[in-house]
Amino acid sequence: MLEKDVQIISVDDHVIEHPNVWLDRLPAKFKEAGPNLVRDAVNGDHWVFEGEKAGNFALNAVAGRAKEDIAMDPRSYDDMRDGCHDIHERIKDMDIEGIHAQLNFPNMPGFAGTTLAMAKDKELGLACVQAYNDWILDEWCAPYPERQIPLMIMPWWDVDLMVKEIHRTADKGAKSFTFVELPHKLGLPSWHTDHWNPMLQAAQEREMPISIHFGSGGAPLGVSPEGMSTNFTIGISLFALNSAMATAELLLSPVFHNYPGVKFVLSEGGIGWVPYMLERIDYVWDRHRWYNDVNREVKPSSLWKTNMYAPFIYDDAGIFSRELIGIDNIMFESDYPHSDSNWPHTRKMLEESLANVPNDEARKIAEGNARRVYNFPRVS
Amino acid sequence: MLEKDVQIISVDDHVIEHPNVWLDRLPAKFKEAGPNLVRDAVNGDHWVFEGEKAGNFALNAVAGRAKEDIAMDPRSYDDMRDGCHDIHERIKDMDIEGIHAQLNFPNMPGFAGTTLAMAKDKELGLACVQAYNDWILDEWCAPYPERQIPLMIMPWWDVDLMVKEIHRTADKGAKSFTFVELPHKLGLPSWHTDHWNPMLQAAQEREMPISIHFGSGGAPLGVSPEGMSTNFTIGISLFALNSAMATAELLLSPVFHNYPGVKFVLSEGGIGWVPYMLERIDYVWDRHRWYNDVNREVKPSSLWKTNMYAPFIYDDAGIFSRELIGIDNIMFESDYPHSDSNWPHTRKMLEESLANVPNDEARKIAEGNARRVYNFPRVS
Repeated sequence: MLEKDVQIISVDDHVIEHPNVWLDRLPAKFKEAGPNLVRDAVNGDHWVFEGEKAGNFALNAVAGRAKEDIAMDPRSYDDMRDGCHDIHERIKDMDIEGIHAQLNFPNMPGFAGTTLAMAKDKELGLACVQAYNDWILDEWCAPYPERQIPLMIMPWWDVDLMVKEIHRTADKGAKSFTFVELPHKLGLPSWHTDHWNPMLQAAQEREMPISIHFGSGGAPLGVSPEGMSTNFTIGISLFALNSAMATAELLLSPVFHNYPGVKFVLSEGGIGWVPYMLERIDYVWDRHRWYNDVNREVKPSSLWKTNMYAPFIYDDAGIFSRELIGIDNIMFESDYPHSDSNWPHTRKMLEESLANVPNDEARKIAEGNARRVYNFPRVS
Repeated sequence: MLEKDVQIISVDDHVIEHPNVWLDRLPAKFKEAGPNLVRDAVNGDHWVFEGEKAGNFALNAVAGRAKEDIAMDPRSYDDMRDGCHDIHERIKDMDIEGIHAQLNFPNMPGFAGTTLAMAKDKELGLACVQAYNDWILDEWCAPYPERQIPLMIMPWWDVDLMVKEIHRTADKGAKSFTFVELPHKLGLPSWHTDHWNPMLQAAQEREMPISIHFGSGGAPLGVSPEGMSTNFTIGISLFALNSAMATAELLLSPVFHNYPGVKFVLSEGGIGWVPYMLERIDYVWDRHRWYNDVNREVKPSSLWKTNMYAPFIYDDAGIFSRELIGIDNIMFESDYPHSDSNWPHTRKMLEESLANVPNDEARKIAEGNARRVYNFPRVS
């Protein structure tokens, strides 16, 4: 069971950027082209970037609504809780749900900062990436250093810039950065190339785990047209298959052989599929490694144990099979303010999930593993 | 544990068609355009259909080889066991591995008969489909009615033809037919349309479960280029995600609401991912049904229990979580002669898998469920 003194760490929540995030920080020459929020009572509020409607306004920020009222998008700041965009209100909402600390993904640029990475003007793109990171570090996290784990976005169109931003933000206290779960799906080099090595080297050196959120490499492919439109229950149900794919891509790549200190966290992917996927990868590797370009010595599932982590929101199947996933590899997440979240009942739901789990295991899952992997030690 | 008297039924094995399957049966006018096997010592044996190299010759028919010698394709009949294409030799190989009865998927036309369904000349296509089915019924299964479960292919380019072929073959003793796991991936209407209703009606009426084999709707999408070529361990590891996708597409479609007697078997998809997928589908359905075009009354996982089945080859994660999958929903498969198979150690491996499973559950998994769903009662 989850003991009272456990400080729950959620490793996947979301900020909805307020209108001044970029206006407050961009150099004067970029203020017009940078992200500007247009208040629009008729069509809904939206961001304009480089002169065009772009990015998410407030994807699925529905915390606190009745299920019958859930849809994909609030249309204005007035439709959502202030905790979405105001850190002081956020802390209050965390207290209500019983979350001690959390890590937030961006919203306007997408979970991996893709909208900014795709900027036509790359100098503007870099300025926007750095403005977002400074906002998270200085305004969002600095007032509550025990309650907020700073997650950075990266200028991943240029690996050298990325390395510099890793070091710049690590020096300021950043703990992790987000990246696309399946880079090849966005036309970027895959994990099987040496393209990302300088980034992996920097992540290893600064001990920054890489947080990859499901959907950050695009929607799941192969879903029926109806399943992505009129009946999106199908698409939503299948997003975590991208996390399973990322697992196979990484465990069967050279990444962890070359950079044994690099760690990945598969945000919002759930955990119940992990035992199957690890067993399947080992089974295939055992039979097919001899004619494939893959490491032939190290069993892939052993790399999961040392280098990959997965959080869950509510996942009885995964808790039941937790020994097969690895007690040290499971984390928790609230997903505030998205519809998957159980806010304001987060702690209560987690207590129910872990009711039959030994106390020491529950403590690792709810707090200890996140503190260890994200280098976020307990203070009080 | 698996008791000695249990007759193991494998619901997913493969035939490699011998050179005369179509030559022996096609009308004279179609013999030239129909599938002809070209023996080619230089480039490997291959099929020619409608004047072009087409279809699989002997995909992955490697049973009995050492792992170090496994690759994707034998190059001639001389490279494979005679049991691949000769029913009398097959029965001997089944006796060696300890399999009492089995159901075989086609090879040359693909797991769902796609190569023949794509024939330019549809009259030829239908003749070829029927020739294959007659071969399976008359030559392959008839001599060993207790050992072979006849699986048909279908002219699925035309639903009315399909209905006729279901009835024609059911009258001759067919027990099931194969279909593409994700029809929309081949450009066909999805399960969310009413296109397939006459076929579903016929399947329900004749009590023929529909066997959908992973990969029959194409390879998994979104895999890296390397993962589908130089390091195919990734692609192979991820094929079963298509089965998970088919599960979401079907459970969240009108199929089982309209045709409660229709059953699907997810061949070679494994079972370890099922608990996660069912829980996830219910979780999403519970929150998102209100604004989506989906049944709002019946919990999707309850339809799994009554209408969907999954076999495994070796899947400790799934056996561990068997209560969450449903003891009545799990079957076994050997996958002879493919590389996933454990031939000749099939029975021994299954005994190990089920060593800690109660006898009555092991009996259902290894024999009873397949006999019930495929209407294949025990004789002796």
